[in-house]
Amino acid sequence: MKKSFCFEPIGYVMKGLPKDKSSGIVSRFQFVSEIFVYDKFKVGLKGLENFSHIYIIWVIDRQREVKLVGHPHGDPSAPLVGIFATRSPNRPNAIGLTVVELIDVENNIVRVRGLDAWTDSPVLDIKPYDYYDHVNDMRVPSWFLEHWNRKNRELNYKKLVPWLGPLK
Amino acid sequence: MKKSFCFEPIGYVMKGLPKDKSSGIVSRFQFVSEIFVYDKFKVGLKGLENFSHIYIIWVIDRQREVKLVGHPHGDPSAPLVGIFATRSPNRPNAIGLTVVELIDVENNIVRVRGLDAWTDSPVLDIKPYDYYDHVNDMRVPSWFLEHWNRKNRELNYKKLVPWLGPLK
Repeated sequence: MKKSFCFEPIGYVMKGLPKDKSSGIVSRFQFVSEIFVYDKFKVGLKGLENFSHIYIIWVIDRQREVKLVGHPHGDPSAPLVGIFATRSPNRPNAIGLTVVELIDVENNIVRVRGLDAWTDSPVLDIKPYDYYDHVNDMRVPSWFLEHWNRKNRELNYKKLVPWLGPLK
Repeated sequence: MKKSFCFEPIGYVMKGLPKDKSSGIVSRFQFVSEIFVYDKFKVGLKGLENFSHIYIIWVIDRQREVKLVGHPHGDPSAPLVGIFATRSPNRPNAIGLTVVELIDVENNIVRVRGLDAWTDSPVLDIKPYDYYDHVNDMRVPSWFLEHWNRKNRELNYKKLVPWLGPLK
């Protein structure tokens, strides 16, 4: 088996999530990011605007460490879980995957809400979110549910991002 | 910006989708695939079994061409759309992304239903599918709906894969 696979970015995050809290942004869902797609790939965006949601596959290029086991969200009260059971950035391969709401596509620029990438993060792929990505009944561990409920209480997802998750 | 990003597989598809139709498999949802995770990453699987669905990020290493614009599913009656508006394998970066049902995790082996990768495909990452991946109201183009309805008539997704998509 080949040891390594290399990919060239198709674009980058031109306007990404602010790093400091002084921006007043406490959730990625409050923020519209802009992705710049390089000229040679621009034609590949044709028809993307007919999807309401898309996947951004990006490189977590400011990854600081790889941690195969850890507490999710750095919360010591959560159980120790493996990296493949969390969305932590400290992965063996620093590949970010985020479902975002598509705002619009204008020339080279794709505007999305909900991206958790910083400015200048390289983008490897954009894929449409379709019915094959929609799981009706899913099971998640209790540590995730606790995190979800806490964030939901803080941010009121139902109002902030009505399309999100099973919000009852 | 760095020109290229390289990733080493964390494992590979030990048992993948049969290539020929003589297997009787007409849908990836009829098939249980096995992913082998290399020893050094095995500990990263801890707790994965508490999720019912996961993402497999894999390399489409038998990609034959890159096609920036094409008819989805090779169907000439569908409109011409850009590669980023389809899940076609002929992408600038041959990265496969599939939501699958997790059957079980046993030592190095992750068993999943619904993976569209062939045997020996390299696996770059495994991520849990959680509420942030669940879009309640999504919009898809009519070409996708026509494809979906046709496949649903052929395969009866409601019976074959009850957790899938908005099936009314």
